[in-house]
Amino acid sequence: MTRAFQLGDLVARFGGHLIGDARRQVHGFATLQDATPERLAFLANPRYRNQVAGSVAGAVLLRAEDATFVQAEGKPLSCALWVCEQPYVQFARIATWLQAETATVVPAGISAGALVDATAVIDASASIGPGCVVGAAARIGARVRLAAGCVIGAEVEIGDDTLVYPRVVIYDQCVLGARNVVHAGAVIGADGFGFARDGAAWVKIPQTGRVLIGDDVEIGANTTIDRGALADTVIGNGVKLDNQIQIGHNVRIGDHCAMAACVGIAGSAVVGARCTVGGGAIILGHLSIADDVHVSAASVVTRSLHKPGQYTGFYPLSDNKAWEKSASALRRLPDLRERLRRLEQLNDVSGTTRNDNSHDDKP
Amino acid sequence: MTRAFQLGDLVARFGGHLIGDARRQVHGFATLQDATPERLAFLANPRYRNQVAGSVAGAVLLRAEDATFVQAEGKPLSCALWVCEQPYVQFARIATWLQAETATVVPAGISAGALVDATAVIDASASIGPGCVVGAAARIGARVRLAAGCVIGAEVEIGDDTLVYPRVVIYDQCVLGARNVVHAGAVIGADGFGFARDGAAWVKIPQTGRVLIGDDVEIGANTTIDRGALADTVIGNGVKLDNQIQIGHNVRIGDHCAMAACVGIAGSAVVGARCTVGGGAIILGHLSIADDVHVSAASVVTRSLHKPGQYTGFYPLSDNKAWEKSASALRRLPDLRERLRRLEQLNDVSGTTRNDNSHDDKP
Amino acid sequence: MTRAFQLGDLVARFGGHLIGDARRQVHGFATLQDATPERLAFLANPRYRNQVAGSVAGAVLLRAEDATFVQAEGKPLSCALWVCEQPYVQFARIATWLQAETATVVPAGISAGALVDATAVIDASASIGPGCVVGAAARIGARVRLAAGCVIGAEVEIGDDTLVYPRVVIYDQCVLGARNVVHAGAVIGADGFGFARDGAAWVKIPQTGRVLIGDDVEIGANTTIDRGALADTVIGNGVKLDNQIQIGHNVRIGDHCAMAACVGIAGSAVVGARCTVGGGAIILGHLSIADDVHVSAASVVTRSLHKPGQYTGFYPLSDNKAWEKSASALRRLPDLRERLRRLEQLNDVSGTTRNDNSHDDKP
Repeated sequence: MTRAFQLGDLVARFGGHLIGDARRQVHGFATLQDATPERLAFLANPRYRNQVAGSVAGAVLLRAEDATFVQAEGKPLSCALWVCEQPYVQFARIATWLQAETATVVPAGISAGALVDATAVIDASASIGPGCVVGAAARIGARVRLAAGCVIGAEVEIGDDTLVYPRVVIYDQCVLGARNVVHAGAVIGADGFGFARDGAAWVKIPQTGRVLIGDDVEIGANTTIDRGALADTVIGNGVKLDNQIQIGHNVRIGDHCAMAACVGIAGSAVVGARCTVGGGAIILGHLSIADDVHVSAASVVTRSLHKPGQYTGFYPLSDNKAWEKSASALRRLPDLRERLRRLEQLNDVSGTTRNDNSHDDKP
Repeated sequence: MTRAFQLGDLVARFGGHLIGDARRQVHGFATLQDATPERLAFLANPRYRNQVAGSVAGAVLLRAEDATFVQAEGKPLSCALWVCEQPYVQFARIATWLQAETATVVPAGISAGALVDATAVIDASASIGPGCVVGAAARIGARVRLAAGCVIGAEVEIGDDTLVYPRVVIYDQCVLGARNVVHAGAVIGADGFGFARDGAAWVKIPQTGRVLIGDDVEIGANTTIDRGALADTVIGNGVKLDNQIQIGHNVRIGDHCAMAACVGIAGSAVVGARCTVGGGAIILGHLSIADDVHVSAASVVTRSLHKPGQYTGFYPLSDNKAWEKSASALRRLPDLRERLRRLEQLNDVSGTTRNDNSHDDKP
Repeated sequence: MTRAFQLGDLVARFGGHLIGDARRQVHGFATLQDATPERLAFLANPRYRNQVAGSVAGAVLLRAEDATFVQAEGKPLSCALWVCEQPYVQFARIATWLQAETATVVPAGISAGALVDATAVIDASASIGPGCVVGAAARIGARVRLAAGCVIGAEVEIGDDTLVYPRVVIYDQCVLGARNVVHAGAVIGADGFGFARDGAAWVKIPQTGRVLIGDDVEIGANTTIDRGALADTVIGNGVKLDNQIQIGHNVRIGDHCAMAACVGIAGSAVVGARCTVGGGAIILGHLSIADDVHVSAASVVTRSLHKPGQYTGFYPLSDNKAWEKSASALRRLPDLRERLRRLEQLNDVSGTTRNDNSHDDKP
């Protein structure tokens, strides 16, 4: 029942050059090792190019130089070679197309069990799933799909072709662009964490800003993006957010950033374009990060980063005993430093090297 | 269509002293820079007081001394000056009142699509949204609002004026006080993580305690608070929890604590009153923290903290190369310490300073 | 109204030896201190055995040696002593049985408000709650209970006796074994985080693998487990996952692992059997961890761990001032190390100890 496609047709559609039988039928992808003759595979990392000859995939996407290598090996090939410039990107594009071609069509229209406010504007090609609630004056674009149980607030706008998985909540007035993918359980536009201290108690500061999300953004499962306090929280175009990320109020994230799961970004941080943030990293608030900054997993960004580059800060892992020793010594480190200085004086060594005199001594 | 309020009426209601035209109409807040004449602004931090003269806000909330400064500047003012003691708190109070005054009224009653058990007691002024499920013998107080898709277990109690955003789940028997705000996706009362090891396998320990939450508590989106194992998990009055916080079973949190997003508190930890915890911090279980303790973001609390104060523990951020060097040296630190000791002996220095002799050597 | 059980009947059912009146009626557990005569208590840790004599519990589960100790104390006992081999495991088993015996019976069948695809196969003994949506060709086993508002994708399989709390989302094709417990807000099978970089932009890689979950697995509230990219994400039998855990695509977790809340595991990590991971720990992707590895809370696993044992890596907590000093010194550590080396040369000490020469210098 799986729908298959002729290799030659796929090459014609996506480009590249085929070495092998164009009449083969394929219906999906697998890894080089696992692929059967009905599946495509790809070689992204040249390190594995000696695995190509052994693969029984229908065809393997690979770069010209890797194809040359494979052919030079002189082994009999059971897979066709599909030569292209960026095998990994080509794989992504083909797989996306295959998925769309073979997906179950969800019929347009509003499910019987959904509750749509009379003033909401729903494009006729949109699909509103069972149990969805859509608020007053919301605008849902063409071919948008809201899966089951989504709650869309008043005056929310959702751009064309955006896919919203089950049980997503979008608070009033938030705006999502076109071609977004929002995964289950995400919450967009909840109140930012803003309170004024009044004696022992906290007085809530109403969060009256919105969340504005660009085009081609992906938002992971159970990720939360808070609305702004006075101004808006802004997510740029092409941003990819993994699961369980927390974005505080008034944060601004530049185009094409990608952040792995469990990242937390505190209020009013400004992140440049094309940044990547590793899983579990924490970015503190009221700071700004330049374009093309890469923050390693589990690192804590406590100050603005003005230059592109890779930044890191987490305690290295050891077996527990070694960690206990190094952590204990770490607490004595200021003392060690002082003792070293005294020894240097005793030895008539200029203990005050430029580095150690530096006034940029803040951690 | 936005409803506006006369400045003089607001001053009469909230207190303070107005310098300027009391007949102006305003309808909300903005920052000093962004505010138009129809909006209020506030000056909380004296550092920015030279921005007041340039603001075209309808009025600026500020302290007497800042008003004196602004007037002494002698620049022409287009904004009125609203002098009060705590501009930031006053801003919070006025903004809250404005929001309530202008909010769409949600009608009381049980939505057609909701399913309320016949034995549940729902105050006539409460509003139960579409898709909500309310269990047996639950008690829902006056003016409570359950937004769409909430699931409220059996015997749950929710106090007056509590606002529950969409898709919140409250397990059986949990108790929420008055004037709480619970954001979308929060889960209150799921089982604590309790298992007894039996050989290789884990045997589940039923979690039969409840979650008891005080008055004036705010709970962020997708935050989870586990029910107690035998006793209850208890959240004090006025506690503010940001998004994606995890509170383990039997934890007790004192009044007026505030915790930023992504904090995790393990089982049976006891946190005092008025503590603050920065984003991403982890508090281990079975320990206790005094009143007025402040834990920095991303820090790990591994032992009881008996004194108020600020506590911190995270690896400082560096560019990746510098981090690699410091992290590598850190692993050698016990060795460095030993070598330093040897050098000191060689130099006839009493290497055993008091600090380094300390028996409190555990990290 | 609470249903009570005779002590003698319970001992007959669960094993062990009773010293005291077998006709007492009990209906649940409490701690040694809090237990009333109608409740059972247990002594798991011998450290507290001098509290037994003072307890007014109906009976106390304890080991033979602790019973001997208590009897040797010679104090009058108001509690019976229930001697058994593993009091904590016995407590877990009895409490589980009591909970099941006294639980409200949820009637089998499909709630009026649920939407079940005509091609789904639902066992007659299963219970599908209000607001649930079950997709095409899904298979729901015997005595499965889906609480309110769950969304179950097409071709999903759920094994016998699995309990799914409200508002869980399971994406298409995922497979859950028997006797699982899945807590509210969990999301199983959302897309893994896979994108190919194409210039500045990211091209989505369709995630076509599934999530396969074994038997006797518990999944915490708002935990997310991503589907595989090409292959499947696999969770072994008896695995216990706490709340807000994130499991990336293609991760494999061995049998009987237990992970505390807020753990994040990046894509393609392979975790052995019987591992435990402390709260907030981060495990990076494409690495493998041996059986019986224990990762401390808040630690970051950056490399494969081939040997069983306890591994740790987080910055120790200090008061903020001490942390500032140690963190500042840490940044100078490579410099300190260099200065120490120079001093050693000056003192004619072989500064190049074996440790410090090591080439395994990577953090």
